[in-house]
Amino acid sequence: MQNILEKKNLDFAFFHSLDSMKINPNIEYFAGYNGLGALVIPKGKSPFLLAPKMEYEKAKKSMVKKAYAIDKKRFFDSVKIVLKRSGIKGKKIAIDGVNFDLNSYKNFKKELKGIKIKDISLDCLRLRQIKTEKEMQIIKKGFNYADKILKESINNFRDFKTESDASSFLEYETKKLGFDVSFAPIVASGSNASMPHYHPENIKLKNGFCVIDFGIKYKGYCTDCTRTIYIGKPNNKEKEVYNFLLNVQKNLISNIKINDNCGKIYENCVKSLGKYSKYLIHGIGHGVGVEIHELPNLSLGSKDKITENMIFTVEPGIYIPKKFGIRIEDTLLMKKKAEILTKVSKDLLII
Amino acid sequence: MQNILEKKNLDFAFFHSLDSMKINPNIEYFAGYNGLGALVIPKGKSPFLLAPKMEYEKAKKSMVKKAYAIDKKRFFDSVKIVLKRSGIKGKKIAIDGVNFDLNSYKNFKKELKGIKIKDISLDCLRLRQIKTEKEMQIIKKGFNYADKILKESINNFRDFKTESDASSFLEYETKKLGFDVSFAPIVASGSNASMPHYHPENIKLKNGFCVIDFGIKYKGYCTDCTRTIYIGKPNNKEKEVYNFLLNVQKNLISNIKINDNCGKIYENCVKSLGKYSKYLIHGIGHGVGVEIHELPNLSLGSKDKITENMIFTVEPGIYIPKKFGIRIEDTLLMKKKAEILTKVSKDLLII
Repeated sequence: MQNILEKKNLDFAFFHSLDSMKINPNIEYFAGYNGLGALVIPKGKSPFLLAPKMEYEKAKKSMVKKAYAIDKKRFFDSVKIVLKRSGIKGKKIAIDGVNFDLNSYKNFKKELKGIKIKDISLDCLRLRQIKTEKEMQIIKKGFNYADKILKESINNFRDFKTESDASSFLEYETKKLGFDVSFAPIVASGSNASMPHYHPENIKLKNGFCVIDFGIKYKGYCTDCTRTIYIGKPNNKEKEVYNFLLNVQKNLISNIKINDNCGKIYENCVKSLGKYSKYLIHGIGHGVGVEIHELPNLSLGSKDKITENMIFTVEPGIYIPKKFGIRIEDTLLMKKKAEILTKVSKDLLII
Repeated sequence: MQNILEKKNLDFAFFHSLDSMKINPNIEYFAGYNGLGALVIPKGKSPFLLAPKMEYEKAKKSMVKKAYAIDKKRFFDSVKIVLKRSGIKGKKIAIDGVNFDLNSYKNFKKELKGIKIKDISLDCLRLRQIKTEKEMQIIKKGFNYADKILKESINNFRDFKTESDASSFLEYETKKLGFDVSFAPIVASGSNASMPHYHPENIKLKNGFCVIDFGIKYKGYCTDCTRTIYIGKPNNKEKEVYNFLLNVQKNLISNIKINDNCGKIYENCVKSLGKYSKYLIHGIGHGVGVEIHELPNLSLGSKDKITENMIFTVEPGIYIPKKFGIRIEDTLLMKKKAEILTKVSKDLLII
């Protein structure tokens, strides 16, 4: 971040969140703090946090040891005072435009007259997409835990009566260990599986393909994995489609090389899917980090390039509206070759 | 919303979310849709949704029956095309500045040349703070479920070894029923209870006060309730502080009348807390609706007024840093008098 501030001639970076339901990913990334408030990174100086009184104790325990308790209701007024006290005079401010709302901007401008903001959201995402050794160690541990939980859930699947039985089990096992889920687990059975972002309901598990999409948040970092199992007896055609998709997915992974263009990987997937390609209704992969969806973006027209130490998913799917859905998703760590972090078996499990 | 558009002479309202981890509360409120995309409410015409392909099926099932499938990657370009096709020509657009990020605004302006935006976030919050009969029916059911889950958890408390055992149990019971939690349940034991927004950890439950803050999301609406129990044997001083706070909370509730000023209610609370008031480190209440924190705001300086059919919490707390914390929170429905929706006992439970 210091390099970015230096290069772009900016006085400080400012990230904030006033919504307890939406943490600012950059605060989490740079400070290891997931509460309300703001993170200031001044050029050439040490960063500090501004937290409402009720989160002050938490802020002091973060990676950024320095924290100020401020009044949440007069947030930008308090920010102004702290900046002044800290001797930060410049008005060229680096912000993340994706995590900065219009009303905050209005209030910010009112308090700090003459500020100039520069959106560095893309710089942040590019910084975050390349993982350090330390991050990789944490993330690998996260995937080990997540694999265990997913395996355990699949082993117990016969005991689940409803979609929510299955999804709540995944979440329960995660939370008991003191971790969070990285998103609400998806368990989509029968025709529901044709909706990639389906929310599991308290309804009897339907026969047919059942998509299970699950990840945990471990020490600030997300994991992501999807397996599709079959409830009941698949016919030959269904087995064929599943194995066809599995082959496409495996080939995609084994072909990925450093410097690959992500739009091109998507195109190759579409080609391999042939007549099924019209049933692919989402991108086929995304980076994973403090957020569940980060760079790189493996989708139509993406110009992102695969680089060493990236962590990203490969997850083609086939969705036939109102009929069925299949998705197979692994998360990879890019080294000389792609290493698969998600080790749960991909053979079609019939239960 | 039609009245607001008419009165403020705006052509249409536009709400959107491009982040699957943060739904737009206004889309949820007006359309009953919690996916990605946008909601357009044109003046004098029927509303419609724009959803990425992968969420299109879900959008069609929402309260707003009309939906368009669009390309998420060219989001504002697609918006432009749909607006044109729908014959919506005006460029005076009502938006919610709290849920509209700077980068979206930049892209929106680039695609729809000459737009003028008007922030109506406060109008939306004011609309949402008064509940209709239908909403009240749904919300009351939600509180019945939430009470049952909280009671069950408290009854089982002796079986929990760690904070995460307790918090994950609350969440598991909720999800098994197919509901969501309205926020990650807080179980803060011992000195951790002095942090109002503490995140439960996989650590042994400590002796002393234990704050349990829990709510569910039922059919789009949040519930909220906090109880503080005692693990071990409280001394007389501790019992005294608890009962003192309980009395303060009960008196606050029984004194609330229609037309009360919310800043004044806060001040009265501070007065009643006397020497403990310096240990109150947050507002003492907030509205509850599709979001967990809405209007009215029961905090210092608030000018909000209590009105019939509002739903809000009353939750004074005493937090002594590194020592202990107590919070007692009910949610009220304002009728001629305040009706308490959270019926779990408030007598100090010692386990």
